Order: sequence, then structure tokens, then C-alpha cells
Amino acid sequence: MERFDFNQGLPDPDSIPLEQLAEAASETMLRDGFELRRYPAKLGLTALREVALRRIASRGSAGARLDDVVLTSGALQAIGLAASALAAPGDSVIVEERTYALAMRIIRRHGLRLVPVPMDDRGLRVDALANVLAGEAARGAPPKLAYLIPTHHNPTGVTLAAERRLPLLDLTRAHGVTVIEDDCYADICFEPACAPTLHSLAPESVVYVGSFSKLLAPGFRLGYFAAAPELRDRMLAHKNDGGTSDVSARIAARYLDRNLDDHVRRVRRIVQGSSQVMEAALDRHLAPAGSRWLTPTGGYFFWVELPPGLSPRALAGVAAERGLAYGSGRDYDVAGADIPYVRLCITSEPADRIDPGIAVLGDCLGRAASMRQVA
Amino acid sequence: MERFDFNQGLPDPDSIPLEQLAEAASETMLRDGFELRRYPAKLGLTALREVALRRIASRGSAGARLDDVVLTSGALQAIGLAASALAAPGDSVIVEERTYALAMRIIRRHGLRLVPVPMDDRGLRVDALANVLAGEAARGAPPKLAYLIPTHHNPTGVTLAAERRLPLLDLTRAHGVTVIEDDCYADICFEPACAPTLHSLAPESVVYVGSFSKLLAPGFRLGYFAAAPELRDRMLAHKNDGGTSDVSARIAARYLDRNLDDHVRRVRRIVQGSSQVMEAALDRHLAPAGSRWLTPTGGYFFWVELPPGLSPRALAGVAAERGLAYGSGRDYDVAGADIPYVRLCITSEPADRIDPGIAVLGDCLGRAASMRQVA
Repeated sequence: MERFDFNQGLPDPDSIPLEQLAEAASETMLRDGFELRRYPAKLGLTALREVALRRIASRGSAGARLDDVVLTSGALQAIGLAASALAAPGDSVIVEERTYALAMRIIRRHGLRLVPVPMDDRGLRVDALANVLAGEAARGAPPKLAYLIPTHHNPTGVTLAAERRLPLLDLTRAHGVTVIEDDCYADICFEPACAPTLHSLAPESVVYVGSFSKLLAPGFRLGYFAAAPELRDRMLAHKNDGGTSDVSARIAARYLDRNLDDHVRRVRRIVQGSSQVMEAALDRHLAPAGSRWLTPTGGYFFWVELPPGLSPRALAGVAAERGLAYGSGRDYDVAGADIPYVRLCITSEPADRIDPGIAVLGDCLGRAASMRQVA
Repeated sequence: MERFDFNQGLPDPDSIPLEQLAEAASETMLRDGFELRRYPAKLGLTALREVALRRIASRGSAGARLDDVVLTSGALQAIGLAASALAAPGDSVIVEERTYALAMRIIRRHGLRLVPVPMDDRGLRVDALANVLAGEAARGAPPKLAYLIPTHHNPTGVTLAAERRLPLLDLTRAHGVTVIEDDCYADICFEPACAPTLHSLAPESVVYVGSFSKLLAPGFRLGYFAAAPELRDRMLAHKNDGGTSDVSARIAARYLDRNLDDHVRRVRRIVQGSSQVMEAALDRHLAPAGSRWLTPTGGYFFWVELPPGLSPRALAGVAAERGLAYGSGRDYDVAGADIPYVRLCITSEPADRIDPGIAVLGDCLGRAASMRQVA
């Protein structure tokens, strides 16, 4: 049986420049190898922080300073540092009603309570946020943090509308809420420009979180955050791991320093190409039965609403039998409800396997629908 | 002014095989580069866990299983995982009265209280441990954990006598204390064989912590722990960083898998050679004024007792003026007392700079002593 995996958020193999990375890796050892005898600098390798700063500046934060940027062991470590440093067990954290499953796990692991806020096709609903913040304050439990993915949201692919961004920040600032802005998908933008980051609009109250996992590869385990000195230092005080891999950082920096802009363009082109292949396949195999989705403007995912009445659990059973993996709606729902959605990663399968894989998903939908009629 | 740094615990530059690492790094990208698109396995790269298992087995734990071994981002992450997973804020942790400064910081950061136990030239005093455990139990605060460095102890260089190991474990087991055995210096042994690890004697109640920082280089940020399934799973539940750098792990594994035994012998020879140079320099420049030390049987450090009556603070002031760095006794004292000791790393300076550097330290001691007489 041929298996298809649309579940994990993985980069396209073709987007990883193996020969250039081999050269960068060899040069790193021969030229900088002796530096590996030292523990990495507390903020991380300067050359890679400069690359991160270029990405942050390209997203509107022209005022961000190199000293604000800290390398982390993946974006997940940055989220964990924020959860431990900027809130205390029992505090509540504002999140979009659907959000990144691992971020939820980390935030909860720190004893924090997730408070979901409804979204629509233009992202988090600011009116709903106002109500939630007022309600939590009235309960005597004003949230300390908001963890948000405003651009190319995971899992829904929605981008928070530009005109909602300042009103959202006015609200969080008024309530003393620090925003963790997870911008890990910002590099993968299919449009000429994304909306400016929350961090660029309110640098004093937003911790910006970025990643090299989507731009380069997850195996490097390289992420970063940017925050004003007071927030940065509170988070740094919890980063007691002896530093982020200097082997990873030096190899990535040696390659990206010279190739960043070309590399970003190339990765975007590859993901956008696969996105178009994915949408054509969805049109062909899923639309006829009543599935619906929004065309993403960037990021890694299609968030597909299942046909009315179809049971997500029935579909999961059929798909497992057929060797097909996708993200199940309930994994991203803050309440863990069995919402009728699947998340499909654009690049986890090579482009030429997308249509055959989505055809299998279409078959599974048909079988799950017929099971409903039988039941 | 020529500066000397005997403070940081760094490997000798000559012990890092740059050309072989360059080859391993290049091969990693060309042959395994596509694997970097995936998130590292939860337990870490199997090939490097196998290398770790060989090190663990060489220390007496022939019964350790590959499934018990988990890669971490440096040994520090393993210590942090133990502190968060195996104790709760407010709990107390047994430690040697002098111990690793960063471990103290991590344990305290988790809200845990350090309870020091006296040592002598043969390591932790088991009679004192019995008293402390009984006292804490009587206070209604029985410790959950002990964090110990039984072999080539940091900072004192002492190794816990073999005949104290089982009695110590009888005590910790009787009191329900899980031992974190920090064995990061075990690879650097100048004698034919070290005492068997605590983990080999009591695998169910000891978490073994090892590192590639001393064997290879800290810039890889690779450590590991080995623990029985129940302890391992509790710690793994707190490892939410998306995995340990696969770039670091694959390069290290590709080199070490083929070269482990030769590499271990070579590193030991280099460190032992520098240790002999260091001891000759101490004999020449420090002994005459009354400094004393034990010759280490392995590890990275000389722990030098200052001449009677000499003020550690006066020495620190003089040394700073002369551009000389060393580890100050109080940084390793659990109570932060100004104990009259300095810690000198054997390999942080190249071998040919050890004698000139220790000569400067001898001068500083003389000046600090004369200041005392003036004062």
C-alpha cells in the first residue's frame, strides 16, 4: 500500500540546498572549528542573529536592534521561555480558538490556562477579544500573555487583516498583556508583501518569534526571538541550556549570509508551486463532495472543511486503513472538540505525489460518507 | 598585557579533529541532508544514542538499553528536565557542598532548595548524608532528588570512593531519593578504569547524565541521559523543544561511530599531558607559598587551596588587574561562602601557555599576601 503523509509540517526536499550546505559545513569545521571549543554566546551566534534581523526587518520591524535578537533551539524553545518567564502557574493566556498543537502543550505544561478567542476569515476577532479580556478581568484573572500566529496562521492559513492589528494591540496594551507573535510562516509568503508584524507596531509589548525550520530545515533546530531589553532579559534568565547549537548556527549562517534573498525567493516559489498543485487536486477530488477551503496566501497548510454531516472520526478510521495521514481538526482546537476540518501540509509530500495522495483522501471522504448513510 | 583564562571548562583545541569533522559534516549534508527536513526523533538520533550507550557501557552499566538513552541539548538540558519532571517547587535537592555552578542555578530556577552534604578527599561523606536525610525527614521536607558528580567532581576533582557507592545508594533508596548522576567528566579518566557508575549499581533510581562537550566540543550542544522507562518518560514529557539538533548529532555520530575508542584515548592523553604540565607549574609557582591541592585522577580541574590567611577577594582584585581568570571558590559553594579555593581548568589554555599563566597566578598570590600584611 502506498502511504501519503500530509500531516507533518515539513519543507520540500528540493528546497534544501544540499551541496551548498555541504560546502558551508566543511568550511565551518576547517575555518571556525576551534570556536566550537567554546560555549555559544548567550544571545547566540552573531552572524546568524544578523540573518534573523534581516528577516525581521523585512517584515516591517526596521527599528529592531541586533541586541534584541536571541537564537533559540527552535521556535518551540522561545515559546517555552516566554511561558516560563512572562507568566506564573495559574495565569491565563489568550490564544486563537484554533492554534498550534505543540504550543498549546508547552503553555499548558507551564501550568497556564488557555483562553480561546474566536476567529473569522480575517483572523482573530478584535470585538471578541475585547469581550474575553473584559470577562477575564471581571473574573479577577486578567491574562498575562497572548500567544498568536497572526500571519499564515497554523492551522487555518488565515492572516490577521492589517486594519485589525493596531486595534488588537491597543486592547492588549490596555490590559497589560504581552503578545507572543509566532511568525514562523512569514518567510513563506506568496504575495508581494505581508502585513507588518505586531512586533513592528508595538515593539515594547510584543515578543517576536521566528524560525529557520521552514526557511531551511527543522533538523537544524534553530529559531529566534526578538524582544525589548526588559522582556529579552527575563526570557534569557530562563535559557540555561549552555546555548543553542553552534554547529547548526555556523553552518546555517555561512550559507544564508551569502544566499538569503535568493534562498527566500526560491523556497517561496517551490511552496507556492506545490500550493497550486494542491489546490488543483482539492478542486478535482474534494470539492465535488462539498469540502471547502480558503486559498492560502502563504505558509504551509490548507485547512479544509469537511462536507456537512461527515464524521471526522469515521474519516480518520478510513484514512488510517488507506495509509493516509493528515492533521485532524481536534488536535488544533483549544477545547479539543471534534471540529470538521483537516489540515493538509503543502510540502510534506513531493509535488508529484500531491494529486495521487489527495485522490486517496477523496476516496476516503466518499467511503466515510457512505458509512454515515449505512449507520 | 597577556591574558590567561583558566576559568572556563573548555577542551584543548588540539583534541578537536577538524579535518575529520569537516569530512563528516560534508558527508552528512550530501548523504543524509534530506533527513534534516524531518523533526529529530523524540529520543534523538539513534546512531549517536548508540555511541552514548557504548560510553555508558564502558562505565559499568552493561545492562543499559538503547531505549533508555535520550539525547539532549547539552547535559544542562538533562539536568533541567530532571529538575522540572522529578521534583516540584519547594522540594529540596541533596547536593555535594561544592558543586557545578550552572547546575545550582538551574535547580534553584525550578524553585527547588539545595541541601549541601559535606565531602572529604574520598567524596561525599555517607555518614553526613545519613544525618542530613534524617534531619530533612524530621523537618517534614524529605528530599526528592540528589544531584551528584561522583567521578572527577567539578570543582574539586575528587572521585567518590568505590566502597562508598553502594552505601550511598542504600541510603537514597531507603529515603525515596532519585539520584541525578552527572558523569560529564568520566570520559576524561587518567587511570585504567574509573569506579562503576551509580547508575550501574542502581539503574532504577539513578538518572545518568553524560555529555559530548568534553569528549568532542561544547559548540555541538550534545548531551544525553539514561534512565529506566518510568523516569525517562517523565523527563521526556518535559522535553518540548522539537528535538535536539540533528545537524550536530549526525556530524558527531558520523565521526564518533568510526573513531570512538581512538578518540577517547587521544583526548585522555592530551588532557593528562596538560594536567602534568599544570601540576609541574603549580609545584614551581604556587607550592612554595603554601598552596595545596590533590592531583586529579581525571576530569578538567585542579582545585587549589589558597595559603592560610590569604583573602580570596584580594587575590581576585589582583588577578583581574593582571588579566588572569580562574574559577573563584565561592561560585561553587552552595552557601556562596568566600572559601579559600581557586578552580583551574587544565585545558582552557594551550599546554605551552600553562606555565607562564600559572607564574602570573603565583605573582598574584604574592601580591595579595603582601596586601594582607600592609592592611
